[in-house]
Amino acid sequence: MPTVTLLTDFGPREGFAAAMKGVILSIAPDADLVDVTHDIPRGDVEAGAWVLRQYVDLYPPGTVHLAVVDPGVGGDRRPIALAVADRFLVLPDNGIATRVVAAAASWRGVELSETAYLRPAVSATFHGRDIFAPVAAQLANGVELERFGPPLDTIRLLDLPTPRRQPAEVRGYIAHIDYFGNLITDIPGDWVEPSWRFRVADRQLSGVKRSYVDVEAGELVVLVGSMGTIEIAVRDGSAAEQLGVARGDTVVARS
Amino acid sequence: MPTVTLLTDFGPREGFAAAMKGVILSIAPDADLVDVTHDIPRGDVEAGAWVLRQYVDLYPPGTVHLAVVDPGVGGDRRPIALAVADRFLVLPDNGIATRVVAAAASWRGVELSETAYLRPAVSATFHGRDIFAPVAAQLANGVELERFGPPLDTIRLLDLPTPRRQPAEVRGYIAHIDYFGNLITDIPGDWVEPSWRFRVADRQLSGVKRSYVDVEAGELVVLVGSMGTIEIAVRDGSAAEQLGVARGDTVVARS
Amino acid sequence: MPTVTLLTDFGPREGFAAAMKGVILSIAPDADLVDVTHDIPRGDVEAGAWVLRQYVDLYPPGTVHLAVVDPGVGGDRRPIALAVADRFLVLPDNGIATRVVAAAASWRGVELSETAYLRPAVSATFHGRDIFAPVAAQLANGVELERFGPPLDTIRLLDLPTPRRQPAEVRGYIAHIDYFGNLITDIPGDWVEPSWRFRVADRQLSGVKRSYVDVEAGELVVLVGSMGTIEIAVRDGSAAEQLGVARGDTVVARS
Repeated sequence: MPTVTLLTDFGPREGFAAAMKGVILSIAPDADLVDVTHDIPRGDVEAGAWVLRQYVDLYPPGTVHLAVVDPGVGGDRRPIALAVADRFLVLPDNGIATRVVAAAASWRGVELSETAYLRPAVSATFHGRDIFAPVAAQLANGVELERFGPPLDTIRLLDLPTPRRQPAEVRGYIAHIDYFGNLITDIPGDWVEPSWRFRVADRQLSGVKRSYVDVEAGELVVLVGSMGTIEIAVRDGSAAEQLGVARGDTVVARS
Repeated sequence: MPTVTLLTDFGPREGFAAAMKGVILSIAPDADLVDVTHDIPRGDVEAGAWVLRQYVDLYPPGTVHLAVVDPGVGGDRRPIALAVADRFLVLPDNGIATRVVAAAASWRGVELSETAYLRPAVSATFHGRDIFAPVAAQLANGVELERFGPPLDTIRLLDLPTPRRQPAEVRGYIAHIDYFGNLITDIPGDWVEPSWRFRVADRQLSGVKRSYVDVEAGELVVLVGSMGTIEIAVRDGSAAEQLGVARGDTVVARS
Repeated sequence: MPTVTLLTDFGPREGFAAAMKGVILSIAPDADLVDVTHDIPRGDVEAGAWVLRQYVDLYPPGTVHLAVVDPGVGGDRRPIALAVADRFLVLPDNGIATRVVAAAASWRGVELSETAYLRPAVSATFHGRDIFAPVAAQLANGVELERFGPPLDTIRLLDLPTPRRQPAEVRGYIAHIDYFGNLITDIPGDWVEPSWRFRVADRQLSGVKRSYVDVEAGELVVLVGSMGTIEIAVRDGSAAEQLGVARGDTVVARS
């Protein structure tokens, strides 16, 4: 039976995620539920977009990935479902799919307008329970994507910067700052050489190391992170704090 | 195989909940475990009672709901199990079932005194592992409720205020303050008209909106929340902080 | 199908644990996944070792327990798998198995060097996804432990103090401070009598109580905790804060 994963910003101590899981199991009793996190910073669609990219492809084909970071709930943003590389995404059309879609060859999607597949009374504040959960369960049950509503030509994408490459210089951005203050950039690890120098927040860093243990505790280190891009970290510490940087800040690498 | 859900206040980083889950799977290997939260504020039975109500009814008939917020563990409060609307609740008799029971037509219950169904050595501090988990697992296995001990005539209920309704005025209470500082009242949404005014903490608020997006960021909004009652929120902020209110404070609505 | 449990220090809001779960389900689609916690204090192998001991034995034989608190990832610590009392442990060889192994009659183990069982490209910073998860999934699928690499003669054990017993005095240590500030010592509850006195941080405490409710809120209490050892707690408060103690501090019990 397909897996259904759940990513939300509903917080760690309420019953909202449990409500979604109950709705899913009532419709798809054999679905395997997997919690990703319910602690995405509240309303931070861009953080959700990054985290979603970390795991979507690693699940079996047919997996249904729910991602509900939805500050516009009850407004005019559309609830949608996408098929990307044999997995399904069920989420608000607010850009949270941006990084998954950018990494995929193609996608198809629908607007979730077919009310027969939703809960009878849809609240204006909790589409996770009333729209996204029942649709995810029906997808897990094998209902065809096209049944949930009209096809989409476009979806909303976050306006993210992209790294620029020249022979001796790459200019990229901090794409994500993780829970520990590691700076994950969008610079592909194979765009730079191990000997290159990096500049971030007026600090110069030399050379790409293999892992955190290649420097002393408290020291800055540049390495290729687990998503394949350049990461700037402090061993046993927070690079974000030590450097005073924010998501979106520039990182420049030079030969 | 039935689902067993777990709500506790054991905190996010200890092995207590995992111990309960191991006990359940050792007795009911095919049970589907669902984490609700393990981060209810420590010992806050009233918060547990609210959160429990958010999801209990949404699960399939036969589901076993564990709820262990149990500041009186090892004292004279009884461990109990209830059957409510085709679902089971396994919990301490300290009022945590109050809101679920209040919403149900009827219930039956037993005291968990039949030691054959408990762990051989019951500790005085961890009934979650030694009493509640094995009983939940046996219920998931289909053991009849009546087997676990003598029937209950009464259970302990929290002494919660109830909202009062007059033609042009409703007086209710803040029943729950959620993780984000939203004030969830006990005033049914259909007791008031969209045009009514609300008073809370000497602030006047006008009109019931549909969702958070109907006001600007940082502004107060009154809406009908996902449980069907009046909610007072701040878009992208904390109403509890902005208004300086606490659970139990009065909210008055007037035509 | 066997259960696979996950304990990590990856934090509550990233996609690392979800990535591990995707890898497991792609290899062992019928595995039952159980989250223990992903919020062990970062890099705190000793805390991980304590928490792991709380639940490992309570799971059915054949369960695979993943425990990835791995500050030395990418360095020369070995990735290993152990068989202990009919359960499997998959973890870095950094001492995190210490308390489980100390409580067991015997163990056997292997170094995870057989690359056929790992992900094709092993990153230097995320062995959870690339080494530990696929091995755990293969163990759940029934692959023999010996297939993953050469047998181990020794593993790394934390250099933990051990309690010392005399007829009228026991000297032990604070082995763990839990999320709520309870002090869990390594003194077996049956080494002392209920009438004994306890000294910790120059405070004298008299007598072993049954549970937290045997003292008033805010008061210190000595009891036998859920793991069978002496615990010092403050009812509805933090003993660690009230006493200003740290893990490893001495506790002396006298008749």
